[in-house]
Amino acid sequence: MELFYSQDIDAGVCRLDGEESGHCARVLRHRCGDEINVIDGLGTMYECRICDDNPRAVVAQVLKANHGWGSHPYRLSMAVCPTKNADRYEWFAEKATEVGVDCIVPVIGERSERKVFKTDRLRRILVSAAKQSLKAAVPEVAEPLSVRDSIKGCDAPVKLIAYCFEGERPRQGVTEALAASAETGGDIAILIGPEGDFSPGEAALALEHGFVPIHLGPSRLRTETAALTAATAVYLRLGV
Amino acid sequence: MELFYSQDIDAGVCRLDGEESGHCARVLRHRCGDEINVIDGLGTMYECRICDDNPRAVVAQVLKANHGWGSHPYRLSMAVCPTKNADRYEWFAEKATEVGVDCIVPVIGERSERKVFKTDRLRRILVSAAKQSLKAAVPEVAEPLSVRDSIKGCDAPVKLIAYCFEGERPRQGVTEALAASAETGGDIAILIGPEGDFSPGEAALALEHGFVPIHLGPSRLRTETAALTAATAVYLRLGV
Repeated sequence: MELFYSQDIDAGVCRLDGEESGHCARVLRHRCGDEINVIDGLGTMYECRICDDNPRAVVAQVLKANHGWGSHPYRLSMAVCPTKNADRYEWFAEKATEVGVDCIVPVIGERSERKVFKTDRLRRILVSAAKQSLKAAVPEVAEPLSVRDSIKGCDAPVKLIAYCFEGERPRQGVTEALAASAETGGDIAILIGPEGDFSPGEAALALEHGFVPIHLGPSRLRTETAALTAATAVYLRLGV
Repeated sequence: MELFYSQDIDAGVCRLDGEESGHCARVLRHRCGDEINVIDGLGTMYECRICDDNPRAVVAQVLKANHGWGSHPYRLSMAVCPTKNADRYEWFAEKATEVGVDCIVPVIGERSERKVFKTDRLRRILVSAAKQSLKAAVPEVAEPLSVRDSIKGCDAPVKLIAYCFEGERPRQGVTEALAASAETGGDIAILIGPEGDFSPGEAALALEHGFVPIHLGPSRLRTETAALTAATAVYLRLGV
């Protein structure tokens, strides 16, 4: 199934941008009268009929709006520190989009080797991933912020942090910790640290702010694998 | 933690091949008397002391053998059809190794676009992944075979196939289906189809041979994402 993406859908009229118009009218040769499906990235898939096949500015009339199309029964925010290698972060974000995630927050830890993060490229990747996995909602990519600010600003009822507290604290397995979230409407935030892990100060701050320490099992997972494993645990527990 | 890999460990003596020797003695400048950790790829990690630091042929004396080092409490065989893009298969295999898998079987379906599959490169990737995730066992990469032959040859007590039987058959969610496997010692085989899915004939053959139809939830996942999601479901259910 072929999907287009538009941020300009209003009053029953859908306009595709230059790139999507070229793909629609030049590459796929769609003409006036053809029906196309367009996602708004916010959760609605519009069935439309093309009324202007200009390859620089396709316009289509909305026939039907399908709200919550390809949605999942939870809200998941993944705050994940950038990996040294940007590709590995991008694949986490792409795969998490396929599985089901609502917000990706690049967070910079005190021990992060990578302190800068470009969000534009990631946003484009997630639009493609949402189309490919038939979801009308494209996960939000937040502007990068510090681990400490993300901890202070997190208001999800279920907040989990994957960190080894060197035995200071008992930790639950992620699936076990998620059992609690079912009663809270499945609004979940998960914090995943950098290769160098969180600083003890960051971890302590998370506990102060009600984050529940979790573990992802005995395997030693890279940052991006840990993040995808946690997102998959949420999907398997609340989405399947 | 730095690990080396050797297939030549015998009678208390461990020999590194040319590549590992160069990395050990030239790059990392290890000398006689240094202690190194070596995995055999079969499940044992050997603590050794170097007795010959020849950068082309390092020899070390075994001090201690740690059996089942970094192992998981199940046996998982993933029979997965090659993806059109080889990179995507390689990342599935790498990530599944981090999470925990024992055997990867490239299976060629009647609807597979890719009918050939090179295993050498994949084996090298899995050695690196096992080292990186601190596992002494490197997953076996089987020689490619047809979906039909893999179905007929599969003798695992729990056999699952991810396939949409168009409502002909009720399907269980993967985690639900795995509950049964806990009583069978966690010896599991999972079959994941190509982009074009299994042929009805292949699916029917799987049912005849006792495969249980499963689904991976409402998300539409690419082949490699479906495979990793299934492997992660096993890890979360039996390994965490």
